[in-house]
Amino acid sequence: MHRYRTHTCGALRASDVGETARLSGWCHRIRDHGGVLFIDLRDHYGLTQVVIDPDSPAFKQAETVRAEWVIRVDGRVRARPAGTENPELPTGQIEMYCTEMEVLGPSAELPLPVFGDVEYPEETRLRYRFLDLRREKLHKNIMMRGAIIDAMRSKMKGQGFFEFQTPILTASSPEGARDFLVPSRIHAGKFYALPQAPQQYKQLIMMSGFDRYFQIAPCFRDEDPRADRLPGEFYQLDLEMSFVEQEDVFQAVEPVITGVFEQFADGKPVTKNWPRIPYAESMRKYGTDKPDLRNPLEMQDVSEHFRGSGFKVFARMLEDPKNQVWAIPGPTGGSRAFCDRMNSWAQGEGQPGLGYIMWREGNEGAGPLANNIGPERTEAIRAQLGLGAGDAAFFVAGNPEKFVKFAGAARTKVGEELKLVDFDRYELAWIVDFPFYEWSEEDKKVDFSHNPFSMPQGGLEALNGQDPLTIKAFQYDIACNGYEIASGGIRNHRPEAMVKAFEIAGYDEATVQERFGGLYRAFQYGAPPHGGMAAGVDRIVMLLCGTTNLREISIFPMNQQAQDILMGAPNEASPKQLRELHIRTNLPEK
Amino acid sequence: MHRYRTHTCGALRASDVGETARLSGWCHRIRDHGGVLFIDLRDHYGLTQVVIDPDSPAFKQAETVRAEWVIRVDGRVRARPAGTENPELPTGQIEMYCTEMEVLGPSAELPLPVFGDVEYPEETRLRYRFLDLRREKLHKNIMMRGAIIDAMRSKMKGQGFFEFQTPILTASSPEGARDFLVPSRIHAGKFYALPQAPQQYKQLIMMSGFDRYFQIAPCFRDEDPRADRLPGEFYQLDLEMSFVEQEDVFQAVEPVITGVFEQFADGKPVTKNWPRIPYAESMRKYGTDKPDLRNPLEMQDVSEHFRGSGFKVFARMLEDPKNQVWAIPGPTGGSRAFCDRMNSWAQGEGQPGLGYIMWREGNEGAGPLANNIGPERTEAIRAQLGLGAGDAAFFVAGNPEKFVKFAGAARTKVGEELKLVDFDRYELAWIVDFPFYEWSEEDKKVDFSHNPFSMPQGGLEALNGQDPLTIKAFQYDIACNGYEIASGGIRNHRPEAMVKAFEIAGYDEATVQERFGGLYRAFQYGAPPHGGMAAGVDRIVMLLCGTTNLREISIFPMNQQAQDILMGAPNEASPKQLRELHIRTNLPEK
Repeated sequence: MHRYRTHTCGALRASDVGETARLSGWCHRIRDHGGVLFIDLRDHYGLTQVVIDPDSPAFKQAETVRAEWVIRVDGRVRARPAGTENPELPTGQIEMYCTEMEVLGPSAELPLPVFGDVEYPEETRLRYRFLDLRREKLHKNIMMRGAIIDAMRSKMKGQGFFEFQTPILTASSPEGARDFLVPSRIHAGKFYALPQAPQQYKQLIMMSGFDRYFQIAPCFRDEDPRADRLPGEFYQLDLEMSFVEQEDVFQAVEPVITGVFEQFADGKPVTKNWPRIPYAESMRKYGTDKPDLRNPLEMQDVSEHFRGSGFKVFARMLEDPKNQVWAIPGPTGGSRAFCDRMNSWAQGEGQPGLGYIMWREGNEGAGPLANNIGPERTEAIRAQLGLGAGDAAFFVAGNPEKFVKFAGAARTKVGEELKLVDFDRYELAWIVDFPFYEWSEEDKKVDFSHNPFSMPQGGLEALNGQDPLTIKAFQYDIACNGYEIASGGIRNHRPEAMVKAFEIAGYDEATVQERFGGLYRAFQYGAPPHGGMAAGVDRIVMLLCGTTNLREISIFPMNQQAQDILMGAPNEASPKQLRELHIRTNLPEK
Repeated sequence: MHRYRTHTCGALRASDVGETARLSGWCHRIRDHGGVLFIDLRDHYGLTQVVIDPDSPAFKQAETVRAEWVIRVDGRVRARPAGTENPELPTGQIEMYCTEMEVLGPSAELPLPVFGDVEYPEETRLRYRFLDLRREKLHKNIMMRGAIIDAMRSKMKGQGFFEFQTPILTASSPEGARDFLVPSRIHAGKFYALPQAPQQYKQLIMMSGFDRYFQIAPCFRDEDPRADRLPGEFYQLDLEMSFVEQEDVFQAVEPVITGVFEQFADGKPVTKNWPRIPYAESMRKYGTDKPDLRNPLEMQDVSEHFRGSGFKVFARMLEDPKNQVWAIPGPTGGSRAFCDRMNSWAQGEGQPGLGYIMWREGNEGAGPLANNIGPERTEAIRAQLGLGAGDAAFFVAGNPEKFVKFAGAARTKVGEELKLVDFDRYELAWIVDFPFYEWSEEDKKVDFSHNPFSMPQGGLEALNGQDPLTIKAFQYDIACNGYEIASGGIRNHRPEAMVKAFEIAGYDEATVQERFGGLYRAFQYGAPPHGGMAAGVDRIVMLLCGTTNLREISIFPMNQQAQDILMGAPNEASPKQLRELHIRTNLPEK
C-alpha cells in the first residue's frame, strides 16, 4: 500500500463501499457527536468524511488532532447511514471508518482559520498566505488563474503563435514607467533593468524572422502602489505578428479573448462581434476610453439647445467655442428624489452640482433648467435623447477635455443607480484610432500619448505634413466592463519614420539610438511590417473570478506597500553584498 | 487581396500552378542568370523561388533589391521548367513569376550574412542577434526550444501537475549562490532579490494545499561566467508534489523526461527504464555523480592486487587505509602507442602519469607495472576486469576523494579514444542517496552538501544519533550523457528536524527563522510530506539540439561577460534613478 494514500480525498464513491483505503490530508473540520468523532479530511481534490468511534484503535490518537493537522488515515469505506448522505459533495455517499491514524504534520494554534468564511485583515492573510490559500475561494481563484493561462496558451497556439522567453535582466529604457534596477557585480557602476514589457524584444523577434510570437510574460514597473495594480510585477499575454495590418491583429486576437471569456464566464454572455469604437467617439459617448458597455447609457452633445437660452450659466459658457454641454440620459430617473441624490453625489465629487431635467406625464419638462430654457428647448432635448415621461437627463458643461472624466463617472453612476447595468455579462470592444501625440502641460511640449513605437496613420507623410496633435495612431485597446484589458498597435518599422516621430516629441536621433539602440539598429537591416498587442493576464483573471482585488488572484502578492510579508522582502543587504555590487545605501536623513 | 500576403513562403505547391499569389519575405539569395533574376524569398515558414525577367514590370525595382531586403511580390505561380525542380524544398515544384514588387524594408550592408554557413565571431553574432537568428540553424534551435517546452508542459499536465507563477521580486536568501539584488525605492536601504530558484515558494505551495505544482521558472544566479552556464538567468522545469516518497517522484518525472527526449531525439535511442545508481557507486564506477553512460567503461577497485606487491609506489600508498588503487579498463587499448598517449595526456592534466598494463597474445601482461607485480597479480587483475589479449588497463592510486575527478576524466578519455562511446543515444539515470552533509575544508565545519531542505534518510533519529558525515539524504539527480540535467529531493517537512539539521551545520534556530521565516512558519501549521525536483530546461534543450553552447539555444543570451550587447545592458543609471533608489555607486579606485 502506498505510504500516504490509495485515494485522494475527492475520489471515493459508493462503488468503493467495502474496500479498505488510505487517505492523507488536512483536518478541515472536526465534530464530536456523542463521543463519535467526524473529521472532514481535506486535500486539493476534495473532502472525505472520516468517522472514528471509541471502538476504533485510532480513537485515542484521533482525540488529539485539531483543525489543519495533516494526518494519514486507514480504514474501511462504508455507505453513510440513510438520510445523512451529502449530495453537495462528490464523496457525499460514503464515509471512511478509520482504524489507524498517523499524524504527519501537526499544527500550532491557527492565526487564521481555514474552515469558514470569516474575513481577516489583509496583513494577517498575507503573512499566513499558506493558510489563506487553503481556503476554498482563494484556492479556487488560483486554480482558475492557471486554467485561464492554459486556455490562453492553447488558443494562441491554435492561431499559429509560438511561445518565446525574452530576457528578464535587460537594459533600462527611460521612457514609460519607472524601471527596477539590478546592480551589476561584474561591471562596476552599471545596472541591468527588469523589463516593463518585452516590447523591444518582441519587435526584435519579428526582425529575426519569426512570424507570430507570444509569451505569458512577467513585467515589472516600479510604480507607486495603486489599488488596481499589483505592486512590482504582473503578467501580460504578449503577442506580435509580422506582415499584418490592424485588422489581422483583430482577427487573430478576438477569437482568443472571446474564447477564453466564454470558457470561464460560467454561462454569462460574452460579446460575439466586438464593436470598434474610435477613441474620440468613446470619449464622447462614455466619457472614457475604457467604457463599461454593460451600461446602455450614451451621452450626447446637446450644446445647441442651451446656446443663447435662458439658462445663463450654460449660455455664457457656450460663447467659448471650446465649451460644450453634454447630456446623460436617465431613463426611469425622473423623480425629484433621484435627481437631488445625483446632484448631491456630484457635489461630493467636487462639482458645483449636476443640472437636470425631469419629464412628467405628457412629456412635460420639470426642474429649474427646464424652467429657465422653456418648453420648446426642453422638448427638443427630450426628442434628441429619446426620453419620455418618468425619465430624466443630467447635464455637464464646460470644456469637454476637462469635464469628460467626471461626465464618464456620472454616466456610470446614473446607470448603476437606475439599475440599468446588467452586471452578469462580459462586454468587449475594440477602442481604435488613438491620438498619436498629446500636449504635455507639464513639459509644455508635444509628447507621445501612448506607445512611441506605433505607426502613425498616414505614415511619414502625416508626420511631415500634419498638425501632430491631429495625427491618429494604429493603436488600439480592448475594453471590457470598464477596464482596459489589452493594448497594442501596428509598429513603425521604418527607421526614418521612427526618427521623425521622436523628433516631433523632442528627441533627436542620437537619443533614439542611445535609448533604443538594438531596435533602431535592427530596423536598418530588413524590417518587416509588424504589429501586436499585450493583454493584462491578472486583470482578465480578476474579471473572470468576479473580484476587484488583484491580490485575490495572485498566489503570493506583495501588500500595498510593495512588501512581501510572507518572505520578508525587501530586506537589508549585507555589507559584503553591497561591496560586491559596488553600491552604498544613501539613506534619507531622519 | 491581403495587404502583404496570400500565402507564406512555404505554402505554394504544384496544385497552385496558374493561380496568382502575393508573398512577403526576406531576399534570401538573389541570382542573375543571363539577365533573369531569381530571388529565393524567405519567411519563417519556408522559401519560394521568385523569377523576374526583363519583360516584367517589376524588373527595374527587382534590380535594386539586395540580400535581406524585405519585399512584397505579386505574381503568377508556375511549374518550374522540367529538370529544375528542387525536391529538397516543399515549394520546389513551383516558382512565382513576379509582376509587381514593393520594398517593405530595405537593408543596409550586412555585418553578418544570413545565407550560408560562414562562422562569425560571437560578439558580432550577439550584437546583430536579429540577423543571426534568421540563420537556419539558430532559427531552428529556438523553435525547437519552444517545442520542447511545450512538450514538457503538456506531459507535466498529463501527470496531473498544475502550473503556477511564483514571484520574481522576492527576498534574498544567503545560502546557495549569489543573489541579484533590486534596490527598493519605497523602502529606503532595503532590497528585493531575484529568486535563485522558486524552492521556498514551491514548498509553500505544498503547505497551501495544492498537490502537484510545476513551473517553467526563470531563475537568477549572480555567478562568475562559466562556459557551461548562461550568465544571469536560466530556466528550470520546477516541480513539487505532496504526500509522496522518492519513488513517487521518480514515477512522475521519468515518463515526462523520457517522453520529451524520445519526442525530440530524432530517432536516437533513449533509456527506457533508468538505472538507479547510488552516489557512492557512481563515484566509484564513473568517477563522477553525473556519469556519461554512453561510455561502457566501469572503474574497479583493484587495491588488493597491489597491496604488498613489487610495485612499491602503490604498495606504500596502500599502507594508509584511506588510499586505494582503481583500474580503468581499456578494451582494445593494448598497444604501447595508445598507453603512452594516455600517459602523456595524464601528464598534461597535471598528473605524474598514468600507470598501465597491456595484455598480449595468451593474456600475457606487459609494461612496467606488470613487470613489477609479476604474472600472478597481473593475471588476477585481468580476470577481475574481464579483459583479454589486446586490451589494457590504467591505474590511479591515492585517496579516492582526491583522485576521483581525474579518474573520471581518464575514464572518459579512454572510452572516447578507444571509440567505445556511442554518441548517438541519450543515456539517462537516477543518481540517488547523496550524502546529506559534507566536510567544508574552507570553513572547517560540517555543511550541507546539497539542498538543506532535503529530508535526511532516517529522519530526526539519524540527525540525533548518527555521524553526520554518514547520513544520506533523500536527494537525487538525473544524469544524461555526462550532464546533471535535474536535481531534487524529498523535503524535510518537520520543523524540529529542520532546526536540528541546520544546527548540525552550525546555524541556530534564530538564523533559520530569519533566513527561511516564511517556510519555517508554514511548517508549524500542518505541513504535508512533500518532495520534488528541478530540471534544467536550457541544458535539456542543448542536449537535444546537439550543441554544447547554451547561447545556441537561448534567443537573446548575454555574452560571457554577462553583457547584453544587443540592448546595451548593463548600463549607467541616471543620478535621478540612483537618488530615488537611495543608493550611490561605490566604484573601485583606478
